[in-house]
Amino acid sequence: MGGTGPVHEALAELPLVDHHCHGVVTADLDVYVARRAELGVREVDRRFLRAAGVAALCVDTGHTPVPLTPPARLAEAAGATAHEVVRLEAVAESVAASGVEADAYAEAFRTAVEEAVRRPGVVAVKSVAAYRTGFHLDPARPTDALVTASARQWLADGGRLSDRVLTRHLLWTAVDLGLPLQLHTGFGDGDLRLHRANPVLLTDWLRLIRGTIPVLLLHCWPYQREAAHLAVVFDHVYLDVGLALHHVGPARARAVLEEALEITPFRKLLYSSDAYGLAEFHALGALAFRRGLGELLQDRVGTDDLSLPDALRIAAWTAGDNARRLYGLSPTEPSTDPTTTERPHSRKV
Amino acid sequence: MGGTGPVHEALAELPLVDHHCHGVVTADLDVYVARRAELGVREVDRRFLRAAGVAALCVDTGHTPVPLTPPARLAEAAGATAHEVVRLEAVAESVAASGVEADAYAEAFRTAVEEAVRRPGVVAVKSVAAYRTGFHLDPARPTDALVTASARQWLADGGRLSDRVLTRHLLWTAVDLGLPLQLHTGFGDGDLRLHRANPVLLTDWLRLIRGTIPVLLLHCWPYQREAAHLAVVFDHVYLDVGLALHHVGPARARAVLEEALEITPFRKLLYSSDAYGLAEFHALGALAFRRGLGELLQDRVGTDDLSLPDALRIAAWTAGDNARRLYGLSPTEPSTDPTTTERPHSRKV
Amino acid sequence: MGGTGPVHEALAELPLVDHHCHGVVTADLDVYVARRAELGVREVDRRFLRAAGVAALCVDTGHTPVPLTPPARLAEAAGATAHEVVRLEAVAESVAASGVEADAYAEAFRTAVEEAVRRPGVVAVKSVAAYRTGFHLDPARPTDALVTASARQWLADGGRLSDRVLTRHLLWTAVDLGLPLQLHTGFGDGDLRLHRANPVLLTDWLRLIRGTIPVLLLHCWPYQREAAHLAVVFDHVYLDVGLALHHVGPARARAVLEEALEITPFRKLLYSSDAYGLAEFHALGALAFRRGLGELLQDRVGTDDLSLPDALRIAAWTAGDNARRLYGLSPTEPSTDPTTTERPHSRKV
Repeated sequence: MGGTGPVHEALAELPLVDHHCHGVVTADLDVYVARRAELGVREVDRRFLRAAGVAALCVDTGHTPVPLTPPARLAEAAGATAHEVVRLEAVAESVAASGVEADAYAEAFRTAVEEAVRRPGVVAVKSVAAYRTGFHLDPARPTDALVTASARQWLADGGRLSDRVLTRHLLWTAVDLGLPLQLHTGFGDGDLRLHRANPVLLTDWLRLIRGTIPVLLLHCWPYQREAAHLAVVFDHVYLDVGLALHHVGPARARAVLEEALEITPFRKLLYSSDAYGLAEFHALGALAFRRGLGELLQDRVGTDDLSLPDALRIAAWTAGDNARRLYGLSPTEPSTDPTTTERPHSRKV
Repeated sequence: MGGTGPVHEALAELPLVDHHCHGVVTADLDVYVARRAELGVREVDRRFLRAAGVAALCVDTGHTPVPLTPPARLAEAAGATAHEVVRLEAVAESVAASGVEADAYAEAFRTAVEEAVRRPGVVAVKSVAAYRTGFHLDPARPTDALVTASARQWLADGGRLSDRVLTRHLLWTAVDLGLPLQLHTGFGDGDLRLHRANPVLLTDWLRLIRGTIPVLLLHCWPYQREAAHLAVVFDHVYLDVGLALHHVGPARARAVLEEALEITPFRKLLYSSDAYGLAEFHALGALAFRRGLGELLQDRVGTDDLSLPDALRIAAWTAGDNARRLYGLSPTEPSTDPTTTERPHSRKV
Repeated sequence: MGGTGPVHEALAELPLVDHHCHGVVTADLDVYVARRAELGVREVDRRFLRAAGVAALCVDTGHTPVPLTPPARLAEAAGATAHEVVRLEAVAESVAASGVEADAYAEAFRTAVEEAVRRPGVVAVKSVAAYRTGFHLDPARPTDALVTASARQWLADGGRLSDRVLTRHLLWTAVDLGLPLQLHTGFGDGDLRLHRANPVLLTDWLRLIRGTIPVLLLHCWPYQREAAHLAVVFDHVYLDVGLALHHVGPARARAVLEEALEITPFRKLLYSSDAYGLAEFHALGALAFRRGLGELLQDRVGTDDLSLPDALRIAAWTAGDNARRLYGLSPTEPSTDPTTTERPHSRKV
């Protein structure tokens, strides 16, 4: 498992910045192996998260059907720093639940989002529009009258935010905020129409918002080539293949990364695990990324397609520097944090 | 050609269940090599079909512009058991040809299909909606009034069934039948709009029919990843990459299988040849599948991504057990059938 | 870099026919390495173009925001023959700029195109409809009345040709001309909606024009498999993966060619560089093509999937013979041109 050579060695040591993940469940599991229960959830989390070798985590806190670790506890388990990503649909739905009037919705949503992102540690916002409406949307900013009419309907009907006008409004509110915007794209669960989650459907909107906020296309699979095209033609577009890595597994991580990197500029690819609920996914995502990228880069050094210094630079960029620059994270986090000193040695569970 | 190692050896010996194929032409060919004519069509069929090493064949009997072997004769040539798949469009078109009235079409079609699937050996139905309308369909069951109006138009116009309402009606009739439904998806001939044959367009319909019948996505190429997504998120969805295998050839079978298997659960992938007309395709499909899957699994054993027992289990599932379970075929067919005893030794033509 | 074996050796020596490229800038660059300036643009062009080892170039002359070499000078630098490809949108826009009346537009455009293709050395026409409207077009030939109405609007509004009716008219005018038609498909710049440049959207139009002109799908990435499907089902459809090669680079050229060649008939794949502006792209495209195809074919000889003579034949077809046959180029061009004798030895810059 894994390979040999200086790129593999460098990637084994490089602390990662996981720019998109979630918390892990806070209770012992009742259906999992005895050893897991014996160790206890805190120790299991600690082992897997340390094994992932992450220096920083950007945690989506907006989807908690079961209790999940808050960012601070995840950070402690990982020996890393944690940052928060605010899920915009969750904010919109709590505004709706608060009993707002339709004509006050737009302002109330904006105020609630601005308040949410002022919390310490918030570095980005996220939308799951891919699940709710898909990206087959009119790219223009909706008028106030249209937003009010749509809010009236939604507030009357209840349920999750899945109105097309309100989703457009949510995305444009994100543009006004100025923070990086993460977008779930591609593969997800059965609520998704996969072809409507192809990020290329966002082309016209991405063209309209040029020069404003960075947009992070999460996961992308199986549309990693379409996403790469967007990252080439738009300065403000970035991507990862996070969720795909622990689904396709270490054996195919390289193949998916190869496709994603065919044309993506090396400063535009980020690492994420999209780990959710189980600490195992944090470790698995990191393992797949290190091995897949290591194989890819090491082989290109071997065939003289890349120099070793360039390969090491690309490894450092994608493992963390691209995310640090984009989200404004401190470059010295890992080494100044004493809790992480044992990390390189504790990467085996 | 082919590889070495225990997985390759296991796959060489495993009898296959070809869950989707057609008959072969019943006459000597007048343009083919002299040796073929010298051997005669029966002997050629026997050699190629034995070479394929199939234990069971599910034969689509609904497309015979030239005379093709019926399942029983194909079974005899192959030393295998044969089962029948009823093509629903063929049934609908024979109902139309019988002179039915528009308002009796729905009932007449249902009765004809029920009769067709009561024939001994029928294990599934199939639709070629991908060729006729594409999958860009309203997923809802059409009303009786709509079916009657559409039938009136079709019966007046004549021709093949390519009406969108009647195609929806045909698919919903299949749901009522309760048998597994095979759907041609992806690559086909020039009648097809490839992007309309992307199975992901069926997402809403597949969501509506959850908990009813198994749906088998045939071929899928180049949409094997989209098909895999459907197999992950819907319990009742299965897939093969049959037709693709003899088109891309043994040299690329592995690559296509790798993509199909990135996320497809191992109990959800089936083998098929989609062989049509020429017995060579039966042999070529089997060769490509055995070699491609063998290389893929053997390499994963080599890199410790799979244990050998798991690799052998996956080989047995995809080669036949998944199909046996799904179509209710007997697990002991090959060994109890004396005509197959020479099969493993006759696999070279 | 590159491989060994007879296929690699053959491909290193084979003169290429680059069936789709552009000129290079005519001035020294002011931001490029000192050595380039020291050598001077003519010597740099000469070295890179000789290194590409091309025997013939088909040059798109219709996009010159900066001065580019005309075909004759490109030919001289390359030691090759050059042919011209007329960009239809450029002709239409110069007709519009000439002050034509709306009801005379159709006839004026036809006359201008016929005149343009009568120039010596013109072998094909090209459309960039992918950039302007995408391929999501009504496939039918538009009526005269519709063309006049659309021309009236366009002539009043000015700007580039991006009207859907006039684009259909342009494509049908190409059919009437009888020359091969090149179509940009797939990956391009930020003006493009990538999913609208998927060549499979042209299916209905390609079916309508069966038996008329050859259609060359340029680049195709990431839709090389969809393009391959069209090349299989339509006799008159051909493809290359030109632009993709210098974007994905030599390290991934093989992977893209593998996908393109999964089902594309070997007489249907052409070489192009889509080099634009910099002579480096001519050399890089050729390098990526020779190495990628060489690896692919050599490995298939090694696994006995291809005989060596077949592999060499496929190399010669795709490197140039397919393009020579299609565009009616002379088969003996390279060897009768004394300026090319040093080519095989000057392939390193």
